[in-house]
Amino acid sequence: MSVPGTLPRIGIVGGGQLARMLLPAAARLDLDVVLLARADDAAVPGSPEVVVGEPDAEGLHALAARVDVITVEHELVDLDALRAIEVAGTSVRPGPATLAVAVDKLAQHVRLGAAGAPFAPWALVASSDEVEDFAAAHGWSLIAKRPRGGYDGRGVFGVSSRVEVLDVIDEVGGAVLLEPALPIEREIAVLVARRPGGDLVVYDPVETVQADGMCREVLLPAPITAVLRTQARELAAMIAETIEVVGVLSVELFVVAGELLVNELAARPHNAGHPTIEGSVTSQFENHLRAVADLPLGRPDTRHASAMVNVVGAGADPRSRLAGALAVDDAHVHLYGKAYRDGRKLGHVTVVADDLGLARQRANLAAAALMPGHGPAAVAPTDREGR
Amino acid sequence: MSVPGTLPRIGIVGGGQLARMLLPAAARLDLDVVLLARADDAAVPGSPEVVVGEPDAEGLHALAARVDVITVEHELVDLDALRAIEVAGTSVRPGPATLAVAVDKLAQHVRLGAAGAPFAPWALVASSDEVEDFAAAHGWSLIAKRPRGGYDGRGVFGVSSRVEVLDVIDEVGGAVLLEPALPIEREIAVLVARRPGGDLVVYDPVETVQADGMCREVLLPAPITAVLRTQARELAAMIAETIEVVGVLSVELFVVAGELLVNELAARPHNAGHPTIEGSVTSQFENHLRAVADLPLGRPDTRHASAMVNVVGAGADPRSRLAGALAVDDAHVHLYGKAYRDGRKLGHVTVVADDLGLARQRANLAAAALMPGHGPAAVAPTDREGR
Repeated sequence: MSVPGTLPRIGIVGGGQLARMLLPAAARLDLDVVLLARADDAAVPGSPEVVVGEPDAEGLHALAARVDVITVEHELVDLDALRAIEVAGTSVRPGPATLAVAVDKLAQHVRLGAAGAPFAPWALVASSDEVEDFAAAHGWSLIAKRPRGGYDGRGVFGVSSRVEVLDVIDEVGGAVLLEPALPIEREIAVLVARRPGGDLVVYDPVETVQADGMCREVLLPAPITAVLRTQARELAAMIAETIEVVGVLSVELFVVAGELLVNELAARPHNAGHPTIEGSVTSQFENHLRAVADLPLGRPDTRHASAMVNVVGAGADPRSRLAGALAVDDAHVHLYGKAYRDGRKLGHVTVVADDLGLARQRANLAAAALMPGHGPAAVAPTDREGR
Repeated sequence: MSVPGTLPRIGIVGGGQLARMLLPAAARLDLDVVLLARADDAAVPGSPEVVVGEPDAEGLHALAARVDVITVEHELVDLDALRAIEVAGTSVRPGPATLAVAVDKLAQHVRLGAAGAPFAPWALVASSDEVEDFAAAHGWSLIAKRPRGGYDGRGVFGVSSRVEVLDVIDEVGGAVLLEPALPIEREIAVLVARRPGGDLVVYDPVETVQADGMCREVLLPAPITAVLRTQARELAAMIAETIEVVGVLSVELFVVAGELLVNELAARPHNAGHPTIEGSVTSQFENHLRAVADLPLGRPDTRHASAMVNVVGAGADPRSRLAGALAVDDAHVHLYGKAYRDGRKLGHVTVVADDLGLARQRANLAAAALMPGHGPAAVAPTDREGR
């Protein structure tokens, strides 16, 4: 339990790149943090204190014994253990109830839908008849989603026949969410940071540009109308309040026929928020920690148009190509210290500029230098078609 | 020895706040760093690898055994040991010859003076007659400087009589530099980052505002004329080339009667460069590491007018006052993780804004929240008089 006037010791569940990017913000504010991570995780070398373990009951209790408040950098956490830890008196931020919604697409549809959040038409289907009924109303160009445990586009399948849907039901081992495959104009994300008492700040929406089912670019601010921007921010704030998040929440939205639809949530710092490091007054990482420590939040305002490009393993370890990337004007290169593997997310590059187009061009140029096997497509982003 | 195409392992001598602020830049670029520090130094908890020791021959050789290149965050280093390490094949950046000039005000006067750098009138005096001769020419309002080992204003004494000068000579144990106390309009500093091959970038001059012999505020950019700005940048670049610095060099200058005079040098990241973290395209810390690793330098351009205020121990541990400081709009708070001691430099606050006056007001407000014993002077900076 924290003593008023003193700063809480913060336990972070996870040791990936998000934890690694939380550490400098914690050091700057002199907040004590302890990671629950594997010994070879990306965030471990720069962490002042580490509990080596898994995010299971044993690991979580060992972490709880050392800290005043626990937060997470990923969702693959034993929620029952977190509930017990909270009951025993260690704060969990975001709370287990919030995390339960964040990992449960069905709960999101039901709970946020009831609160007025817009979703694509959907049904929970488990039988051949239910599939046929849905297709009769919406056609056979469909998306099947695992109701729980999917994230960052995982657990999502394009399907176009009864057999394919039944295969997914089989694979998932139960009912799946079915939606029509809609003509997505754009994917955007809105970050919210919220304190325990309810104070919150809402960032400008970003556009997340996908390629091969993976987020490739993030553009801050999203090039959308002022009306849509306001709607997106209000929707994200409403969702943050509905699920009573503490810390950062990433609300991912589709724009379809000029309207917003909720895609998914992540109750933690998110890839979509990386441009806030250089582009916003306060980064998502600092505001996550401020929220979790119940300190006043920093302004989320966009200071610069910013373009971020993810760096995935493509033909060479990006460390060996660093000089080429740094030779690109204004490239802010972030490498995550992970062992090279083809296709693995190993870093990102952000460029800020008065002109988002210029920022985007340079960020792609620097990222391409780090991904020699990626080919020229990395330099010339094309418009996406559909999802 | 580093292999072409791979990144050198970097040893940093020192574990204070400068090393602490180098660490996030190293992590971002995934550069391996090893500190030579004391176990309780500020940078140790967030450092991936530490050699616990002193910057003496034993410590430096232990560090050299683990790295490809050695750099420093302070000047109190055994230069003979560094020379031996360099001869044995480990790079030292900046080199021992550069460091020798940086810690030797007499060498600076002689060497940079010969290269055309402007200094106040000066003499090296050791005897009563030499003192009298200098005073006959310049009056009895004088400054006596320890020729070696002084830095950040230490080893500098205001003197106004023969007896006082002889006392300083006695205390220093040999000759001292004597200068007239000039009517200083302003103190400015210019940071340069330079690679081994000679490539360099020059930052905008900052104004360093002193109080009680300590740097209190840093203003980026310094409010000086374009002509003076250009002269200062050219002078700093010339000095960097003359002493062949590798890494960051801070050139501290006085403005006297509209003209520049060299005050002192520091061949490392410097307090005067802290506003570059938020205010410049590339921070002094990242460019120091890029230079030391012989990677392309980042642009030094000022992105925002920035005001920085140092936080010194004054009545309460600033950690206990963090919420008050973070409640100030746009305050970027940096705490160094040091144990509280009255008068000790414990952190700094930077605020960027379109208007430098507003940034300065806010930075002082946030710093005052962290220094409850400092009194209202912290909020309302006054013009300095003389030195």
